[in-house]
Amino acid sequence: MNFTVIGAGAWGTAFAIHLARSGAHSVSLVPRRAEHAAALVAARENEDYLPGIALPKTLGVTVELVSALAQAEVLLLACPSQALRETCGRVRAALPENSTAPLVLSLSKGLELHSHKRPSEVIAECLPECAVGALTGPTNAAEVARGQPAAMLLASTLGEEPLRSVQAALSSVALRVYTSGDLVGAELGACLKNSYAIAAGCCDGLRLGDNARAALLTRALAEMIRVGVALGARPETFYGLSGFGDLVATCHGAWSRNRQFGEQVGAGARATELLAGRRSVVEGYKTTQSFAELCAEQGIEAPILREVHAILFRDKPPAEALASLMTRELKEEYR
Amino acid sequence: MNFTVIGAGAWGTAFAIHLARSGAHSVSLVPRRAEHAAALVAARENEDYLPGIALPKTLGVTVELVSALAQAEVLLLACPSQALRETCGRVRAALPENSTAPLVLSLSKGLELHSHKRPSEVIAECLPECAVGALTGPTNAAEVARGQPAAMLLASTLGEEPLRSVQAALSSVALRVYTSGDLVGAELGACLKNSYAIAAGCCDGLRLGDNARAALLTRALAEMIRVGVALGARPETFYGLSGFGDLVATCHGAWSRNRQFGEQVGAGARATELLAGRRSVVEGYKTTQSFAELCAEQGIEAPILREVHAILFRDKPPAEALASLMTRELKEEYR
Repeated sequence: MNFTVIGAGAWGTAFAIHLARSGAHSVSLVPRRAEHAAALVAARENEDYLPGIALPKTLGVTVELVSALAQAEVLLLACPSQALRETCGRVRAALPENSTAPLVLSLSKGLELHSHKRPSEVIAECLPECAVGALTGPTNAAEVARGQPAAMLLASTLGEEPLRSVQAALSSVALRVYTSGDLVGAELGACLKNSYAIAAGCCDGLRLGDNARAALLTRALAEMIRVGVALGARPETFYGLSGFGDLVATCHGAWSRNRQFGEQVGAGARATELLAGRRSVVEGYKTTQSFAELCAEQGIEAPILREVHAILFRDKPPAEALASLMTRELKEEYR
Repeated sequence: MNFTVIGAGAWGTAFAIHLARSGAHSVSLVPRRAEHAAALVAARENEDYLPGIALPKTLGVTVELVSALAQAEVLLLACPSQALRETCGRVRAALPENSTAPLVLSLSKGLELHSHKRPSEVIAECLPECAVGALTGPTNAAEVARGQPAAMLLASTLGEEPLRSVQAALSSVALRVYTSGDLVGAELGACLKNSYAIAAGCCDGLRLGDNARAALLTRALAEMIRVGVALGARPETFYGLSGFGDLVATCHGAWSRNRQFGEQVGAGARATELLAGRRSVVEGYKTTQSFAELCAEQGIEAPILREVHAILFRDKPPAEALASLMTRELKEEYR
């Protein structure tokens, strides 16, 4: 199968390496900046985002979108969610006319600010002739690039039969791809977990302990389901790879940007100052703003999102925010 | 309220400290061995299992079961699950006649070998005049003893009204107790998570990475629900503190005996040799045997439990067992 991956951050690069490794597919990786593409071609390694891992010989690197898209059957967009609309615009301009529209899969994990749209909604608006989808789940980029085992979720508007061949092409012995008909849930789980990872990080920064963190994550899963279902998702999706799985990996992994960011905030740093000094994006920051607005607009009860929002955007002290979550009225666990 | 805690391992001691700390209750801690009781009284500390944490002055320590039970309104049993029946026999012999039977709560997290009975079933058989229940959830003993925040689940056969006063008496600002009507689920979640913690530990011992571990835990949650529901539990209980919450804490915490045991097994140690050298009990070991037998008898599909059982009891190499879990047929996540 013919794959094009747009965006050469850690995750785009890792997934392109995974696809190219088998040797069975044609894979192009398209960095945003020409200098970055040149550096990748020269070093055969992404020294900025994925140091120490060689690019397979079978992986092509180019900035020429027109040529990269000429034969693409599946297009994977691995850019920050706030850059997705602009990226789709560039794809729009470079797509060959009169050819079969590729399947466009999002690898992004955040809502678009203000519109509150999911990645696949943004893609569908910009590229209406393409079938769209999302590839989500618990995936540390470096582990995938090294070929360590992982499992992911593929949700799409594509029909069942063609989706099965994409599933097979995306999978390897190490990386198992499961399919789901719940695109809304797959994307919402991937986005929401970044907000809850910030909350878990705050818990760590405050040194509240493993019990408090487990209690918080348990309430977060319940809240994730409540919010997700209110927004049109199926509940079971959140018990799966894109909800529970991604939440557990993000909150456990020392590498998670969102958890780490939360930990620094919990330890007393100011969110805006932390973000000013960063090269890579903390998706959970803006996504928390989107979800807090969405929940307020639609009357969805989401106390954890509300408190994370208050910490990040209204300078509420994390200790006070966490305390207000931990001392709610005693009640039945499920009513 | 009048509490008696039987068993002075880490968890029994920690919970007795928690109850005594408020000063509002009368609390007795009853170690199994007289020497241990004497050591606790002399040091005002449980140096063997919970070093560095002082016993509150308000906590009574005794081996005299008859006196400890004379006024007990709530009896908490914090012994290994394989010692529960014997402990209940001693309680039976020491309980005052013609007095109101206490509520007996299990703090154990394992099934009885061969009978496959849950802790509260064993208690109810031995002490049929008592209402029974279980207190479960993600609780590292040292954190509870130090008064760090935590949340637990209280499930019982006691009526709703009296249970609410027990709930209030067990709770503090730091430790929130939620109630549940699903005693079967609360206990099965607490038992099952120990088997899955061994599996997660194997994953760590094999250095498979965070993605693989998250994928394994995601499938474990689904399996836990399938097994639990087949055995009479409500599915939502496993998404709560006693399933998801305890699983996350156990698999994250460096302190978890079951996870640690699994890690050593994954790294190549033999289960029987590891167990021979231990003072404290690895509940998941025998519980895995019970669940594997139960699932086989009742035709419940539980591949993770089956593989953990094969590793522990049939010397199946962990790498082979994990590989057979990771390379199952590609399919939809939820069908």
